[in-house]
Amino acid sequence: MKKNVLKKFQKIVGKGNCFISPEETSGYCFDAFAKSNVFPEVVVAPENAECIPEIIRLCNEENLAVVTRGAGTNLSGGTLPFEGSCVLLTTKLNKIKEINKADHYAVVEAGVITTDIANAAVKAGLFYPPDPGSMNISTVGGNVAENAGGLRGLKYGVTKDYLMGLTLFDAEANKVIGGGRTVKQVTGFNLPGLFAGSEGLLGIMTEFVLKLIPPPESSRSMLVIYENILKACDTVSEIIAENILPATMELMDNFTIKTVEEATAIGLPVDAGALLLLEIDGHHVQVADEFEKVKYICEKNGGHLKTAEDEESKNKIWEARRKALSSLARLKPTLILEDATVPRSKISSMMSSIMDISRRYEITIGTFGHAGDGNLHPTILTDKRDKEEMLRVEKAVDDIFSVALNLGGTLSGEHGVGTAKAKYLEMEYGSGTVKFMKNLKKGVDAGNVLNPGKMGL
Amino acid sequence: MKKNVLKKFQKIVGKGNCFISPEETSGYCFDAFAKSNVFPEVVVAPENAECIPEIIRLCNEENLAVVTRGAGTNLSGGTLPFEGSCVLLTTKLNKIKEINKADHYAVVEAGVITTDIANAAVKAGLFYPPDPGSMNISTVGGNVAENAGGLRGLKYGVTKDYLMGLTLFDAEANKVIGGGRTVKQVTGFNLPGLFAGSEGLLGIMTEFVLKLIPPPESSRSMLVIYENILKACDTVSEIIAENILPATMELMDNFTIKTVEEATAIGLPVDAGALLLLEIDGHHVQVADEFEKVKYICEKNGGHLKTAEDEESKNKIWEARRKALSSLARLKPTLILEDATVPRSKISSMMSSIMDISRRYEITIGTFGHAGDGNLHPTILTDKRDKEEMLRVEKAVDDIFSVALNLGGTLSGEHGVGTAKAKYLEMEYGSGTVKFMKNLKKGVDAGNVLNPGKMGL
Repeated sequence: MKKNVLKKFQKIVGKGNCFISPEETSGYCFDAFAKSNVFPEVVVAPENAECIPEIIRLCNEENLAVVTRGAGTNLSGGTLPFEGSCVLLTTKLNKIKEINKADHYAVVEAGVITTDIANAAVKAGLFYPPDPGSMNISTVGGNVAENAGGLRGLKYGVTKDYLMGLTLFDAEANKVIGGGRTVKQVTGFNLPGLFAGSEGLLGIMTEFVLKLIPPPESSRSMLVIYENILKACDTVSEIIAENILPATMELMDNFTIKTVEEATAIGLPVDAGALLLLEIDGHHVQVADEFEKVKYICEKNGGHLKTAEDEESKNKIWEARRKALSSLARLKPTLILEDATVPRSKISSMMSSIMDISRRYEITIGTFGHAGDGNLHPTILTDKRDKEEMLRVEKAVDDIFSVALNLGGTLSGEHGVGTAKAKYLEMEYGSGTVKFMKNLKKGVDAGNVLNPGKMGL
Repeated sequence: MKKNVLKKFQKIVGKGNCFISPEETSGYCFDAFAKSNVFPEVVVAPENAECIPEIIRLCNEENLAVVTRGAGTNLSGGTLPFEGSCVLLTTKLNKIKEINKADHYAVVEAGVITTDIANAAVKAGLFYPPDPGSMNISTVGGNVAENAGGLRGLKYGVTKDYLMGLTLFDAEANKVIGGGRTVKQVTGFNLPGLFAGSEGLLGIMTEFVLKLIPPPESSRSMLVIYENILKACDTVSEIIAENILPATMELMDNFTIKTVEEATAIGLPVDAGALLLLEIDGHHVQVADEFEKVKYICEKNGGHLKTAEDEESKNKIWEARRKALSSLARLKPTLILEDATVPRSKISSMMSSIMDISRRYEITIGTFGHAGDGNLHPTILTDKRDKEEMLRVEKAVDDIFSVALNLGGTLSGEHGVGTAKAKYLEMEYGSGTVKFMKNLKKGVDAGNVLNPGKMGL
């Protein structure tokens, strides 16, 4: 980067918030999906949102694309930089500006850590439900950009369901505001709806109004042990068909159980074919009623129930689930985490197909995930240096996608498209949809400055 | 319209589904907001969605703008036709294609009547909550286009919260699909989010996947009588601040109470300063618990509670509320219905300002509405032939908007922008936002074919 250009960036964000040496920028060449060999030209970390229009204008002048990035915990390569890009870090925009107890909302900057919002809500006697796996380090800006899910999606929905309003700067450096502080708002296009899951392609988001809700009065966690994983899947479908919506219904297959137990020694039943981890919440009498119904359905399907009687055993159940991905990641050099999602009555078929695919291509797949959402995470363990195995892995991934679509599902329930699934977008929605999305992107970013090429757009 | 063009339309949709005479097209010159003096060139009512691309291409060839229209019950002039327009009626796309009990969704065409969806859900043991005032005649396509609200918005949200997937045709006649049948879906932009409230500007929507939910086990309705309307408003804020979310909290002022009673003789207390109509629902024990808390808060604020002990008295309560608008409409030739919305803790301030404005400009305002959403409907009764009074009315409306925005609110909670509020859009969101929305519209509709000019875009 030319010295005079660097000076301009330094003038905008301050000397200490501008990085160009490979030692400094190399930390922004990867996200939780992959590592890129390309370094960004510059990384800037503005301390206030007001200077962002200047950054955009300078990038436009210097022909630099802008990759907006929070903690980079996304699982689809959405924040990977490319040749001639400026990484705009939002991590210093980290103020919780308001927690409004009377009106049940929070106003936060894009770089605030998800857990900090959840904790601030609790302190005010309220509840912010979205809980993506990476919530202890992820930023809310990233959560919105990816429309992050989590364990509570089943009953409480995902990030988009809590996005009431937002402020952003578009590719022309216009300040754009959508939604607001009211629970109903229909003036102009629904920009919070559009920007949830927009993966940094449409604007640089700086601030959000997030809905908070009354917390459930009580909750009950349980662990259900199955010999047969398909029976665990059937349990999930039957519970929902009975009109019961637990806060969470998580699944782990035998391979994942063994791996987590090896890594954590929590005391999981390593011989089980599968585990279901459930949490019911709400009014305490409702919880008691639903518990009996859920217990009946679990046992009817051959499940053996262990309820968490105290906080410690409750925490252990959820620790086991939260350790699934990191435990699997220890086993092999390369981990490919999928999140194909199907209607909830189809998870037994999906699970059965995943097992077939694993056998057919002789590859190791550990499956866990948000069974209650129909959102499984078949996790392929491999080694990308093994070219022959990688060919089989690619075929397996294609097959997983085909099966999910044939069951009325989607390629991605919560991880997004990014670079990982760009080539599959048309497979799910057809060429007309991709054309529409390209037009939309072009309309608001004619110069293709904002995260170009991601989603294949 | 030239004969050969008419013939082309007739070939596409059938002779009986094509209207050009003033007698036939005059019925499409108005919606629930206003009447236009301009007739559309042609009205077409396709019986299947497959022919819509042909309609779009023909309109493009013949330089006709397309105004998509369901029942025309919107309250913002969103479906008013203009010079050289083709009104595309969706009312014959009226099939409920699927009610999925296991996966809790419905697949419906755009022209299905809202009530028919609600009833089909009930039949399947499920619940479709959005209940706009016009639900007995409105189409779901219109509900989505306007992101319609209703009485249950407080607890259950609005139309956008139930839109899982959609199919549409864009201005280029591309078939575009967004979302789907899974509860989590993040492949590509969030098109269901974008199209909720898009007012026919971005595409012609033909089919939706709608979320259905388990119905509440029980419910309890009550009517609370207040001497002082501001105390009724305080009650609403206090209930929410206590973390109780009733399904509904509706307000009626004295003027509205008297007017409804004159029209219906239901037996409303005509001397009351205000009425609150509440419904609590959920698990029966939770309902009982919340009832006691709500009762306490109501009485603390001077409210006198009457609970509905049977279905008949319950229905009467809600009939009274549903008759508010039509009863007011009988009084004067011109009715101007506003829906400025504020954060819920501010409704007392908003109500107080509305009363001030009514006095200041010496105009009649009856106020009712969804107090629990901060969404009041100050309803101005006037006569548009009275030029002098209309000047005062205009000033009053401007003042209502200013107050709502100053209280952190919005110009429209659920009625939309259309032609009614086009000139106010920038007032709420600033010029950068309007520029962004124009760019977005231009990107996907370069020729400005779809409902041009609405929202001021």
